Amino acid sequence: MNTYQPPVADMAFILETVLQATPQLQALPAFGEVDADLVQQVLEESGKFVGEVIAPLNRAGDAIGAQWKDGQVTMAPGFRDAYRAFWQAGWPALSAATEDGGQGLPAVLEATLYEMLSAANHGWTMAPGLLHGAYECLKHHGSKALKDQYLGKIATGEWLATMCLTEPHAGSDLGLARTKATPQADGSYTLSGTKIFISGGEHDLSDNIVHLVLARLPDAPPGPKGLSLFLVPKFYPDGTRSDVHCERIEEKMGLHGSPTCVMRFDEAKGWIIGEPGRGLNAMFVMMNAARLHVALQGVGLLDAAWQKADAYAQERRQMRAPGAKDTSVIAEHPAIRRILDTQRAWIDGARVLAYRTALELDMAKHHADPARREAALRWCSFVTPVIKAAFTHQAFYGGSECLQVFGGHGYVSEWGIEQHVRDARVAMIYEGTNEIQAIDLLVRKVLADGGDGFCEWLDSLCGDDTGGALTGHVRALQGLTARLARAAQADPALPYWVADDYLRAVAVLLLQWAWLQIGARAPQDAPRWANPAQAFARWVLPVLGMRMAIMEAACSRAPSRASTTVA
Amino acid sequence: MNTYQPPVADMAFILETVLQATPQLQALPAFGEVDADLVQQVLEESGKFVGEVIAPLNRAGDAIGAQWKDGQVTMAPGFRDAYRAFWQAGWPALSAATEDGGQGLPAVLEATLYEMLSAANHGWTMAPGLLHGAYECLKHHGSKALKDQYLGKIATGEWLATMCLTEPHAGSDLGLARTKATPQADGSYTLSGTKIFISGGEHDLSDNIVHLVLARLPDAPPGPKGLSLFLVPKFYPDGTRSDVHCERIEEKMGLHGSPTCVMRFDEAKGWIIGEPGRGLNAMFVMMNAARLHVALQGVGLLDAAWQKADAYAQERRQMRAPGAKDTSVIAEHPAIRRILDTQRAWIDGARVLAYRTALELDMAKHHADPARREAALRWCSFVTPVIKAAFTHQAFYGGSECLQVFGGHGYVSEWGIEQHVRDARVAMIYEGTNEIQAIDLLVRKVLADGGDGFCEWLDSLCGDDTGGALTGHVRALQGLTARLARAAQADPALPYWVADDYLRAVAVLLLQWAWLQIGARAPQDAPRWANPAQAFARWVLPVLGMRMAIMEAACSRAPSRASTTVA
Repeated sequence: MNTYQPPVADMAFILETVLQATPQLQALPAFGEVDADLVQQVLEESGKFVGEVIAPLNRAGDAIGAQWKDGQVTMAPGFRDAYRAFWQAGWPALSAATEDGGQGLPAVLEATLYEMLSAANHGWTMAPGLLHGAYECLKHHGSKALKDQYLGKIATGEWLATMCLTEPHAGSDLGLARTKATPQADGSYTLSGTKIFISGGEHDLSDNIVHLVLARLPDAPPGPKGLSLFLVPKFYPDGTRSDVHCERIEEKMGLHGSPTCVMRFDEAKGWIIGEPGRGLNAMFVMMNAARLHVALQGVGLLDAAWQKADAYAQERRQMRAPGAKDTSVIAEHPAIRRILDTQRAWIDGARVLAYRTALELDMAKHHADPARREAALRWCSFVTPVIKAAFTHQAFYGGSECLQVFGGHGYVSEWGIEQHVRDARVAMIYEGTNEIQAIDLLVRKVLADGGDGFCEWLDSLCGDDTGGALTGHVRALQGLTARLARAAQADPALPYWVADDYLRAVAVLLLQWAWLQIGARAPQDAPRWANPAQAFARWVLPVLGMRMAIMEAACSRAPSRASTTVA
Repeated sequence: MNTYQPPVADMAFILETVLQATPQLQALPAFGEVDADLVQQVLEESGKFVGEVIAPLNRAGDAIGAQWKDGQVTMAPGFRDAYRAFWQAGWPALSAATEDGGQGLPAVLEATLYEMLSAANHGWTMAPGLLHGAYECLKHHGSKALKDQYLGKIATGEWLATMCLTEPHAGSDLGLARTKATPQADGSYTLSGTKIFISGGEHDLSDNIVHLVLARLPDAPPGPKGLSLFLVPKFYPDGTRSDVHCERIEEKMGLHGSPTCVMRFDEAKGWIIGEPGRGLNAMFVMMNAARLHVALQGVGLLDAAWQKADAYAQERRQMRAPGAKDTSVIAEHPAIRRILDTQRAWIDGARVLAYRTALELDMAKHHADPARREAALRWCSFVTPVIKAAFTHQAFYGGSECLQVFGGHGYVSEWGIEQHVRDARVAMIYEGTNEIQAIDLLVRKVLADGGDGFCEWLDSLCGDDTGGALTGHVRALQGLTARLARAAQADPALPYWVADDYLRAVAVLLLQWAWLQIGARAPQDAPRWANPAQAFARWVLPVLGMRMAIMEAACSRAPSRASTTVA
């Protein structure tokens, strides 16, 4: 069973040749010293570390997994040592500010690192994957006292962090959360309640764990506006243990390397982060970065599955391919070739979009021109929900296609491919389910101004479209968006029915844009890029027409669902 | 966690009201005594047994599974007792001939039984699921001596059976099999070789296990025509143990309740079934029944997943649905409603097609009129690969949609939904991968006569189509089929590239036919049938247009792939 090899050359091609990242980064005051050599060096060094240290632990993470006993969680063999090496080498701090102990590098290099890590070992990566959000949250909203004690340790990854949001009855609807925070005379709070689905709530990777917790003050109104954010560490700075305990970890479909914890807060002492009642706001500032991170998991997991399937297909010999004289390797059979090229089309196109979004995060944060920062935020606002949902969906469904390449061997654990499929499934759910992403895109963003802002933004995709096919699709989507906006006035429920179609149509359109970018810069007719480009046009692009037809039909019959009832 | 409840009323509605099964069965000489009461009684009794005895063992089958030790396999707790109750109650022998100890009932009642069993406990059901094929194989091709010793025990299920086909290097391409059979002076053979992926190769459910084994005689030609079929029991009639041993069982993605065995034949004594070199023919006679059986697994597993998702969606309360004043149960949210209604549309339509195919098997075997028998075989020949591939695909992908309804809880084993998804995945692979089914349909069957026979057969679907929408789609597919046949002359590889599109287009067309049948007989406007009918039209039917467009484009550019190479 081969383990994942970080595809450094492919990643560099997308980042530098297709997206021209370095000159754009150099133009930002914060990254004047970034050059092509540095980018290449980070890619190579991270690829080496991930390939040699993290990837080999993936099987044990699944087969042995995290073990709970009496409130303690022991991670899978090798996980702790690997984490120690990771933070001591400075990887968690890649994009943290230098004044906090970080390396001050661009978000886009953190993106390539986390794509590799997720591909190599999704379970292990869950723990450091939460650091970035906790760091930004504390940096922007924490008091000076809290920052002095915690920010540097989180920035460098010496201490790991969690996000304690979900409760048994409060999943997508965090406004239902009941965990209570009671103010104390010394300015601190005591927190009581139960949080579930807490990734890395307890483990032995780091000496301390810092929990960021949504809770409700005694006088808080019901709903999301009554939630505040608190910091509760596992150990206080004086070394005493807090009253936060891991009651159990969940048995799951996959991701066994990451303990999914039920955390009990028993009047645990903590401190508020930011203003009372502004807890969700403090967390949602990080939402684009967090969702991009999950989109990158999707890209990485699909690439890991593809690598395995491709290697198998080049070796396994069964039957004659059409026109062959003897038995062929299965990579030559059209049914297998089609799977491999189609998934390759998703991975490469997705990589363009994910890296471009990471670059826009850098622009939004660091560009000198407010208009450019605004444009960058707009890109992130529209594209992030699309790539989170579309790439995690594809990681699971496309990963399953890669499994199919193995025939019966794909179902057997020994080959490792089925683990990727099981691990990938969770990313369609967490960080906002894919259904929530679709509603975020269409209802909260596109239709918020009747579609005007989004339609204007779509125009910006057509700049490089010399052939005109993309422009035609953009025009069609713009027309449909206007129609949806009108139909939604008569039937406010309509956008909720078609949100999934809308997101998927936009995803295919964005992939078409991405493949135009690749096509303009890839060597002519090289099979490495020509075959997936062709697969995209033949087997992915037609989804756009189908989704458009579904939405057109929905507009024609609005108000929707008037004549039927819930069964 | 609720367990599966056999939906006896729904099944009876499809079987009797929609398909009018009883009068058709009564018209067959073999089933003159079958009446509506008997059908209802079999449905209810089987539903009771499956719901009370088999379904409750499903979780243990997954969590504990089959255990291998020193060549012995211990099944999960409760499995052995349940199997004893099963065969003693006469269930395995439902459709076996009365002269062999069976009940002589129609195949369509075996179909409803196995749909329930697979839904309730896919792992447990694998063992008896192989009986029918072994019985038919031995009955039609075995010598009198073999039948005297083995047929009755297999017919009644007192002994279980296996099909030993696959070898490590011979999966889809059985012609590569190397297991050797050497003739002995007494007319027996000694078999040597290794077979893999043998479901139920070893277990403690029955006192004996009868293996049907593909092997090669010393003078046999290479390839599939060199294969003969042999019978090797675990224990000979005199009680001695044969030299067939289970080396290990596979760790798998799911289906842990069924041991997937590596079987080693060490000069094991056996007997030939049928003629030398005709081994594949002997097995392929059973192919339609075996593939229908897998299609029914797909229907059952999706229904089991749907039941869980529906129950959860009726209880779980999150956020306000559009237009609601307070938090709603998630079944009222369009994104969830759409998932549930769409999967319901698949299940109900699939049930019509699967039961109809089982009825056609009864017609093919028992009808007095040779023309009707021929027509029945034609139905089975065209429809079976479609429903095998389409329903197993949907069981996994639609099952994953049902998992999504649970949000994070769907990923947690406790709720049981993720097991259905893992278990279902294998059915896309075994009994001929879904890619093989697509090639079987388009290349081996439809295009074998230039598409004429299939196009003529398609006309027969339009009889009940008063509205004309189905007829329009049939005409379009007929036109496309003729075009494909012409294009394939210039480019023989073309059908292999589009076989998957073709199968899926036919699947949607058949589902449209099925929903016309339901619509003609379901109570007007009852949400139980109206909602999935609407979901089918809105969200499943559009796939047909997309698949047609993909194939039209492929015909326009044939010869395909001329300009690109394998990467």
